[in-house]
Amino acid sequence: MSELIPADAGRAYELDRRHVFHSWSAQAKIDPMVVTKAAGSYLWDGEGNRLLDFTSQLVFTNLGHQHPRIVAAIQEQAASLCTIAPSHVNSARSEAARLITSHTPGGLDRIFFTNGGADANEHAIRMARLHTGRHKVLSTYRSYHGGTSLAINVTGDPRRWPNDTGTSGTVHFFGPFLYRSAFAATTEDEECTRALEHLQSVIELEGPDTIAAIVLESIPGTAGIMVPPPGYLRGVRDLCDRHGILYIADEVMSGFGRSGRWFAVEHDQVVPDLLTFAKGVNSGYVPLGGVAISEGVCATFAERPYPGGLTYSGHPLACAAAVATIRTMEDDRVVEHAAELGRTVFGPGLRELADRHEWIGDVRGTGAFWAVELVGDRTTREPLAPYGASSPVMDAILAACRRRGLLPFANFNRIHVVPPLTITPAEAKAGLSILDQSLAGVSMNNA
Amino acid sequence: MSELIPADAGRAYELDRRHVFHSWSAQAKIDPMVVTKAAGSYLWDGEGNRLLDFTSQLVFTNLGHQHPRIVAAIQEQAASLCTIAPSHVNSARSEAARLITSHTPGGLDRIFFTNGGADANEHAIRMARLHTGRHKVLSTYRSYHGGTSLAINVTGDPRRWPNDTGTSGTVHFFGPFLYRSAFAATTEDEECTRALEHLQSVIELEGPDTIAAIVLESIPGTAGIMVPPPGYLRGVRDLCDRHGILYIADEVMSGFGRSGRWFAVEHDQVVPDLLTFAKGVNSGYVPLGGVAISEGVCATFAERPYPGGLTYSGHPLACAAAVATIRTMEDDRVVEHAAELGRTVFGPGLRELADRHEWIGDVRGTGAFWAVELVGDRTTREPLAPYGASSPVMDAILAACRRRGLLPFANFNRIHVVPPLTITPAEAKAGLSILDQSLAGVSMNNA
Ligand SMILES: Cc1ncc(COP(=O)(O)O)c(C=O)c1O
Ligand SMILES: Cc1ncc(COP(=O)(O)O)c(C=O)c1O
Repeated sequence: MSELIPADAGRAYELDRRHVFHSWSAQAKIDPMVVTKAAGSYLWDGEGNRLLDFTSQLVFTNLGHQHPRIVAAIQEQAASLCTIAPSHVNSARSEAARLITSHTPGGLDRIFFTNGGADANEHAIRMARLHTGRHKVLSTYRSYHGGTSLAINVTGDPRRWPNDTGTSGTVHFFGPFLYRSAFAATTEDEECTRALEHLQSVIELEGPDTIAAIVLESIPGTAGIMVPPPGYLRGVRDLCDRHGILYIADEVMSGFGRSGRWFAVEHDQVVPDLLTFAKGVNSGYVPLGGVAISEGVCATFAERPYPGGLTYSGHPLACAAAVATIRTMEDDRVVEHAAELGRTVFGPGLRELADRHEWIGDVRGTGAFWAVELVGDRTTREPLAPYGASSPVMDAILAACRRRGLLPFANFNRIHVVPPLTITPAEAKAGLSILDQSLAGVSMNNA
Repeated sequence: MSELIPADAGRAYELDRRHVFHSWSAQAKIDPMVVTKAAGSYLWDGEGNRLLDFTSQLVFTNLGHQHPRIVAAIQEQAASLCTIAPSHVNSARSEAARLITSHTPGGLDRIFFTNGGADANEHAIRMARLHTGRHKVLSTYRSYHGGTSLAINVTGDPRRWPNDTGTSGTVHFFGPFLYRSAFAATTEDEECTRALEHLQSVIELEGPDTIAAIVLESIPGTAGIMVPPPGYLRGVRDLCDRHGILYIADEVMSGFGRSGRWFAVEHDQVVPDLLTFAKGVNSGYVPLGGVAISEGVCATFAERPYPGGLTYSGHPLACAAAVATIRTMEDDRVVEHAAELGRTVFGPGLRELADRHEWIGDVRGTGAFWAVELVGDRTTREPLAPYGASSPVMDAILAACRRRGLLPFANFNRIHVVPPLTITPAEAKAGLSILDQSLAGVSMNNA
């Protein structure tokens, strides 16, 4: 008996509008696109239009859509053992843990599995608090760490504002971001030094002995793909060591090849105490996240129970998808391909666009992880949309991309170029060319 | 190319011990069982022993293991569209939302999907806080609402204790539980009246205008399957209405047929404002949870954005598994079967055991949702294990069950009988008979 659900776009839309409550949205103000089909770097909307996926959805389908090896792994695992409680051992989970720890920075050898990124960060913070016996957690402005209560409170973007109630001990500081420097810096070096001095001041003024952890996206993602200057992450590591603070690297978006390395901390040769992941670990084909844990933290919970858990921790189906994803990344040298794309296609290609379009104030990124910052004025750097919102001209640019067959990822005044890591150079160039045309096609009058 | 992971029990165990961090555990003190295979009401351990699953794992495989229709649905959805971002529409999510809302109590017509139960409760509470403009949340002692920061803080069991930091505005009250009455009641009626009076006092003393929501498991699950007396849930509904408080029914464990109704609030003809679910919605084959939302709460977020979300909200693969699960429950009359099992097998069978075993202090439940409370002394009702822990005699009983081929679910001094809803009467009776022998085989001397 087939359990297929009829893929009728009109019916899917109608039922969605009637019965589905959408995240981060005013329910009456959205008009979502139907997706009926997806393959590789493309997806198809309800009218049958093909779109090149420059979003990887929410930056998670790192191996593209419907990768045959992950699909096969899910089907085979489903046929043998869909699920089992976290307390029992099963081979899919064991093998996923082995493969993940074979790529995490040295010594992060134990995995606590979660359903996604938010709970990974929540549990990492809990481990840090219990390990250190301290309560406070530092994180940066311009960051996103997830949607649950604690995760949204350490988040440093406008999504935190309406949720800023009832979670004490979260403190925000400024990370490095030369283009909009909080420290009046003019070079990456200066930005790095001053950002570290600032963090040191915050630690001293908050009281080092009250701080359990610093939570840091190795490259802040949704907030703008601000690649940190060389030495910054190492500086954070030093400050943590000096004050007995744990370093939690949030690699939910930056991990698993997105930045052209398995994990973005590698760019600065840093080993955090806890590293959180999700998304790319299995290309998001089945919900999965987790925390990679250092020996030291693990030892804290050797004789004393770790007080945390969830029903689907280490879900076999999700873990089987991770195994196939990681094996594919190894076999097909996907991480190296992403690095190469950054060096030869996205870096040069986006900088060329910047030469041609006054609107582009900044281009930054690495691997398949790029941000294009749009401004109304290059001198004042006035964003083309305010912090926390969009604008008619941004909307016009995005609509122009879609009309030309490109699905863009946008956040406020930025367009992020975050396609599958498996995108071909030809597809990547075709996407950049659509972006080029769309920027050219929308005039300042829309602003 | 096959992506199969070798099902070598020894290797799985070794890798688990080396690389997997287990929830709620002291890592050095556990010796987890390997599961290599599962089918229907059974699973097989690493040595090839078959065990009758009286746990449904963590009370979620409501249709048993490897149900062919759910497996087929996962395989077919995997072949067509594994995943898509929450913002896009797809038919699996739309159809799952339609099917779920066709069974939720009247008017809960809109679904916000999450990954599991904890985040479902976190988002329900957030909706209630924003809808009411109030901050406090009331929940019962002896409850479990999930492992993330806010969810564990509204939880009322020992798992909260080490996490009781930094979440303000959560207040615990006593629910009805005649066997260990907090109100010196001697009848269900008296317990009901006094428990409602107690709740009313707590509301008045906390300040009604400060309370956003009451979060209540319709039948507290892990905490002891305390079926509330008739009228209690209706009384809670009345108190909520009187004070403008939202009623959040946590049906993560009790929902989707477990209690012999689609949702346990139906036993008392109650419609909550928000209802959270997970587990049974798709038998846990793919991580999925959600909140069913009333029109009133939904209207709050019509023009104003709901500030919450997660990457895998409404994951197509998880939703396809939900569609197959719900269709199967309808076609095979699974809910009616569960109710019948409770009436004809578990109720009479467990009461018969109580007649024979001094250790059984109380038997309570409905459908396929039963608790057996073990006591050292029937008069004092002294639990056979302390609150928050096990004891040698409990461990001996559980080990005896396992040796005889039954996987039991235990919590402190209780054994829960929570098999798949699809268990046959013959299998159910065989399980009860093993429980009988195991209770008989362990002498008080183990205590
Ligand atoms: C850096 C980072 N951390 C955490 C999260 C939260 O992950 P999830 O949505 O799976 O909870 C995200 C999601 O976008 C993220 O980008
Ligand atoms: C009543 C109840 N609510 C919430 C949860 C939390 O669900 P999850 O473990 O999927 O986060 C559970 C889990 O056992 C539960 O029983």
